[in-house]
Amino acid sequence: MAAELTAHDLIAKHRPTLDQALEAIRTRAYWSPHPEHPKAYGADGSLDAAAGKAAFDAVLGTRLDLGQPGTDDWVGGETSPYGIELGVEYPHADIDELLPAMKAGQRAWRDAGAEIRAMVCLEILKRIGDRTHEFAHAVMHTSGQAFMMAFQAGGPHAQDRGLEAVAYAYVEQVRTPDTAEWTKPQGKRDPLALTKQFTPVPRGIALMIGCNTFPTWNGYPGLFASLATGNAVLVKPHPRAVLPLALTVAVAREVLAGAGFDPNLVALAAERPGEGIAKTLATRPEIRIIDYTGSTAFGDWLETNARQAQVYTEKAGVNTVLVESAGDYRGMLSNLAFSLSLYSGQMCTTPQNLLIPRDGIRTDEGPKTYDEVVADLARAVDGLLGDDARANGLLGAIVNPDVKARLEAAAGLGEVALASREVSNPEFPAAVVRTPVIVKLDGAKPDDEAAYMSECFGPVSFAVAVDSAADAVELLRRTIREKGAMTVGAYTTDEEVERAVQEVCFEEAAQLSLNLTGGVYVNQTAAFSDFHGSGGNPAANAALTDGAFVANRFRVVEVRREA
Amino acid sequence: MAAELTAHDLIAKHRPTLDQALEAIRTRAYWSPHPEHPKAYGADGSLDAAAGKAAFDAVLGTRLDLGQPGTDDWVGGETSPYGIELGVEYPHADIDELLPAMKAGQRAWRDAGAEIRAMVCLEILKRIGDRTHEFAHAVMHTSGQAFMMAFQAGGPHAQDRGLEAVAYAYVEQVRTPDTAEWTKPQGKRDPLALTKQFTPVPRGIALMIGCNTFPTWNGYPGLFASLATGNAVLVKPHPRAVLPLALTVAVAREVLAGAGFDPNLVALAAERPGEGIAKTLATRPEIRIIDYTGSTAFGDWLETNARQAQVYTEKAGVNTVLVESAGDYRGMLSNLAFSLSLYSGQMCTTPQNLLIPRDGIRTDEGPKTYDEVVADLARAVDGLLGDDARANGLLGAIVNPDVKARLEAAAGLGEVALASREVSNPEFPAAVVRTPVIVKLDGAKPDDEAAYMSECFGPVSFAVAVDSAADAVELLRRTIREKGAMTVGAYTTDEEVERAVQEVCFEEAAQLSLNLTGGVYVNQTAAFSDFHGSGGNPAANAALTDGAFVANRFRVVEVRREA
Repeated sequence: MAAELTAHDLIAKHRPTLDQALEAIRTRAYWSPHPEHPKAYGADGSLDAAAGKAAFDAVLGTRLDLGQPGTDDWVGGETSPYGIELGVEYPHADIDELLPAMKAGQRAWRDAGAEIRAMVCLEILKRIGDRTHEFAHAVMHTSGQAFMMAFQAGGPHAQDRGLEAVAYAYVEQVRTPDTAEWTKPQGKRDPLALTKQFTPVPRGIALMIGCNTFPTWNGYPGLFASLATGNAVLVKPHPRAVLPLALTVAVAREVLAGAGFDPNLVALAAERPGEGIAKTLATRPEIRIIDYTGSTAFGDWLETNARQAQVYTEKAGVNTVLVESAGDYRGMLSNLAFSLSLYSGQMCTTPQNLLIPRDGIRTDEGPKTYDEVVADLARAVDGLLGDDARANGLLGAIVNPDVKARLEAAAGLGEVALASREVSNPEFPAAVVRTPVIVKLDGAKPDDEAAYMSECFGPVSFAVAVDSAADAVELLRRTIREKGAMTVGAYTTDEEVERAVQEVCFEEAAQLSLNLTGGVYVNQTAAFSDFHGSGGNPAANAALTDGAFVANRFRVVEVRREA
Repeated sequence: MAAELTAHDLIAKHRPTLDQALEAIRTRAYWSPHPEHPKAYGADGSLDAAAGKAAFDAVLGTRLDLGQPGTDDWVGGETSPYGIELGVEYPHADIDELLPAMKAGQRAWRDAGAEIRAMVCLEILKRIGDRTHEFAHAVMHTSGQAFMMAFQAGGPHAQDRGLEAVAYAYVEQVRTPDTAEWTKPQGKRDPLALTKQFTPVPRGIALMIGCNTFPTWNGYPGLFASLATGNAVLVKPHPRAVLPLALTVAVAREVLAGAGFDPNLVALAAERPGEGIAKTLATRPEIRIIDYTGSTAFGDWLETNARQAQVYTEKAGVNTVLVESAGDYRGMLSNLAFSLSLYSGQMCTTPQNLLIPRDGIRTDEGPKTYDEVVADLARAVDGLLGDDARANGLLGAIVNPDVKARLEAAAGLGEVALASREVSNPEFPAAVVRTPVIVKLDGAKPDDEAAYMSECFGPVSFAVAVDSAADAVELLRRTIREKGAMTVGAYTTDEEVERAVQEVCFEEAAQLSLNLTGGVYVNQTAAFSDFHGSGGNPAANAALTDGAFVANRFRVVEVRREA
């Protein structure tokens, strides 16, 4: 490695962080090396708030030349959900030239071994981390997340998920030793003796297909898992959320080159409007791994058609919260209100169906009827979002017209318990900001079932009246089995109901949050500790992150010789 | 567990063995708890040679009633490749009754946890191990393997592979702790604190589809990996090789019941002639995991159609040995002669194509022409198999008429360098015993390519004349990429050629044996140390055994609560 970043320096700089990450995924205690507070940035070469904003402003209206081979055109045209035209141009690739170029550096990357690959990945994450303020604006103005959420979820939390993937990838590769001496006794004869070498080899080129709402958070796990296991990675961003991933690719290419590797190991595939390049890329023989977050329709298409690749998908689901009884009624209401409001419910983990017995529930404030629970929840959301500045800070903007249309249609599905209202954003008047709608449905009515048994992505939730706790548990089971779920929540003080809900989650493989009333929400997961999805129900075929997420991104080749 | 086998006793008995297995897969040094020598059996409750033979004889002509629910008929009709009618009848299952019954015990099996499941699996393996002599006859008289091979490959080596799978499954499940306390600082406010529980949950019912040639060796990894990860396992044996797996199922059911679990967690699905039950089973929604060894056509069918399941397949491939130069010419010839002869080449790992430069090779005995190398190899095989008793002990019997037909047709594909001859078996006169044929082909002739680029399973190998070492390396690459390979061998004293071959194996993901001249053969792999297949070329989508083979057989469900 004749390079500015030597192996020695990289190991000295990043090995302790990797070791801490390895310890964290073993204990699953709280840990993160990436500060969550915006004011923590500015020292040690990181950009502070002003510098990050300036860096973001400076990239607007420019051509982001990544120096990629096979660039045959320039494409762009992102409009922020806050109304800004980003005006950034990205390279459009001639795939027949780019893909072979991406393979050129794979041998050296493979030969570098698992530790050096991990160190290079950590350097990429470190440089992204230093530019968290800049990335926050890029995520905000593509996803529509409010600044603080874009900062945290798009910055440190995404970096955590990337680092977690590197840690899993590293440990998976080193569980088989580089070499082994094998000596088998043969009684009185000489023993049989072999020297064996074991080399993790990549599958080929990985394709990471980004999403609109969480370009970095949902993108980094696959990107870093594939890169850390020796694969080249082609990043195909969502056409509305190119910038955060283009900046990521730029950093990765800079670090790879600086460490003496071929920068083409990571490349961007931006597309023309309507080009639909993902389908073309996904079935290329060079593409051997695909990570995808998005619609069930396209996820299913990938699983069916991209048979030459390992396909990891996160698709639609219907998240349920079962409300059977409450030991802290106020806490439950405020916790749920926050979960429904955060980023206007545009998270794959936001609860959609709230199952509430039609005869009401027991609480620490006495019995509450179904109508009272729904009205109290509506009031809690109203209270949380009553102040426009606070509402803007929590809700962010509606990411695209489809979400807005679904929100508007939802009011016609049943009795509206809480109407959505427009919130004006003084800083970005063009932003479409809406509070959530809560619609009452009857779990026993077939017409209503059509609504609550489909994903209605966005700030829409259904208060579904059910006959009993047992009825709720069975509806929960059916919903997970048929539609999938990224999250399940339950409120109950009854041990038997708790056991029943837990059993459904075990049998249908869904992640369960019980009786959350404080500052942790059902729609949030923490890297190194919480699994995001289970990989065992229709909402996703993989979990972030476990052994299965990394183990098949490489293979181990053994070379054996007589000793 | 109100049972004869208590958790305490099982742990006391088997935990040390599991720990040794865990250490072995980490170091990949030689280790096995299962003795290879027939005379090692007889003490400690294990059956000696006479008792094992008597047990086998006693089962012939009987009805093997496994006590399975939904048994609607009895099926059988195996004929040994050695001519014996086994006459054993097995339960035929009404699948609509059997599958639900298999699910009934899954909750208790899941709740038992990874360690107890591993202990129960080790008890099953121990009881199978005690009956190794009996299983050896069952494997011999279904696969056609000679007794000594059936004993070793079907006994201790298969048990090793089963134990290896249990060890991988165990370590994969316990890498996430059962519980974690997660406390996130919040500056001056109280920290956020959660208690998290992590539970490995099974996918459902696993289907293990056995093969004719290695019912136990190829079957145990999937069977034990699935069972150890909490799944029920339905064993669908090859119709010609039911007995070894039926005995396995019987032992598993006995141990499960003895340990207080539902014996229906493991069941047999024997079939009527021509029933083709594998297709029906493979697409049942209850079946969530499939392990298969057999033809590419049916393996591809499973991968395409059994979309509700995780599918692990070992299919056809074309194994190559590249002969470029030899530092120990005699050693090479005798090593290759053994590999071609063992079990009449009816191993998925037997070399098929021997690539030899048409201009000859350098050796420690001076230069040898292509013709000389082929003639010397033919002589080596002849010498090895010259004595009929020794030939019978090495070759075993031709497993089925298809193999015999392929062998007979092979002589017409090119110039025969070594003709196959019939060997009479005095003990089993009906056995079809044949020595291997070696046919000369030209790597440059398209007609010949049709032959050497297809798998010709059985005692057939092709001495393919190539233009140069570089030509051989490229043909090796193309063969692995297009046809797959379970094994690659190479003989060379040239470091550059060695590097080139190794690079092809890295890039195409194939397992390489270099310059084997002694008592280890390219077609043999040792559990705990060697990987069987790579999972990265068309011959198999999984390797025995690595993390990827076990990690997706279960999922981890997290339940979190405020602390």
